[in-house]
Amino acid sequence: GPKAALDPTLSARLRFLAEADRLKSVTRATLLADASRRENSAEHSWHIALFARVLAEHAPQPVDANRVAQMLVLHDLVEIDAGDTPVFGQVDAAAQAAEEDAAAQRLFALLPADQCDAFLTLWREFEANETADATFGKSLDRFCPPNQNLAAGGGSWVEYNVSYATFRDRVGRKIEHGAPALWQWLEPRVTVFFQQKLGRSTD
Amino acid sequence: GPKAALDPTLSARLRFLAEADRLKSVTRATLLADASRRENSAEHSWHIALFARVLAEHAPQPVDANRVAQMLVLHDLVEIDAGDTPVFGQVDAAAQAAEEDAAAQRLFALLPADQCDAFLTLWREFEANETADATFGKSLDRFCPPNQNLAAGGGSWVEYNVSYATFRDRVGRKIEHGAPALWQWLEPRVTVFFQQKLGRSTD
Ligand SMILES: [Ca+2]
Repeated sequence: GPKAALDPTLSARLRFLAEADRLKSVTRATLLADASRRENSAEHSWHIALFARVLAEHAPQPVDANRVAQMLVLHDLVEIDAGDTPVFGQVDAAAQAAEEDAAAQRLFALLPADQCDAFLTLWREFEANETADATFGKSLDRFCPPNQNLAAGGGSWVEYNVSYATFRDRVGRKIEHGAPALWQWLEPRVTVFFQQKLGRSTD
Repeated sequence: GPKAALDPTLSARLRFLAEADRLKSVTRATLLADASRRENSAEHSWHIALFARVLAEHAPQPVDANRVAQMLVLHDLVEIDAGDTPVFGQVDAAAQAAEEDAAAQRLFALLPADQCDAFLTLWREFEANETADATFGKSLDRFCPPNQNLAAGGGSWVEYNVSYATFRDRVGRKIEHGAPALWQWLEPRVTVFFQQKLGRSTD
């Protein structure tokens, strides 16, 4: 009826969801596992939400898989304004954090106030990387791309001419911090790949 | 350590997650809101998981937004084997359902048995479309594409030369069933679009 058609709360939510559609056009450095193209941040967000459901048992302390999945569904929306920052590129971390927080404020403010607050709080918890849910979620965000690189024949490691030391510092260290079991699984595979496929030292 | 690196449970889960990557290459009939390209089923799954979080309050009876979101993250995985079935195309519904159930069995069986059972049960609950969570989730899956079509200037409505009666039958009726408030919001907008932009009768 005409009342529902004019519901301002619902209209606000649908404006937010329409804006979110733009995340499908934000391109990442990572290739799909079959190396056919670069992936975008929306499909990446789907994939790691699935990682959260499937791998929650491997977190070093109990996590709420629902909260982790929700964080991961929301976490990259800021890239609609701020773009994706490739992990192996050069970056001013403070400037990037400020740009992403401004983006979070703009985007979530499209929603009704209570939902804006809830989403912004959850997004900032993820970014702060301190709670068990956030730390595990952040680790999944780092853990997913190396698996695609292994499948794709190198992917962003080749494109960015990444040394094992850089991979260890920017990716491995963070996976190890929030998901040591996943790092123990990944490390020997990446080491062998860097040595045998990329011919690079892993000392 | 070597033990974690050989963990068969973790390895099984990662094989499933690697297989899931293929959903990013399943193309749907729907265009992105900016009409720049067709969307794929992985980014669509992300988008409607977000719809579930944002719109749960508009369900006609209480739903568990976490369960709905999880159903929607899983619901299209079967398209890796069965492909996407455009809602306006011709289809043998029974054959499609059988093919999708076989796909669900193959894909979820990549996981450890307890997780396979849990995911298969949730996926079948969604497909059965009987519980409050499933019915609302199914409605979101129908509600999302028309919003993209409205933004994209017609999208799959133009490509498939869809009449308003067909839209009403294959899409509107199902949204109305599981999410009447969303249908009340959408119906007048689609009616005006069909009349004014597509020049089609909506009687
Ligand atoms: Ca990111």
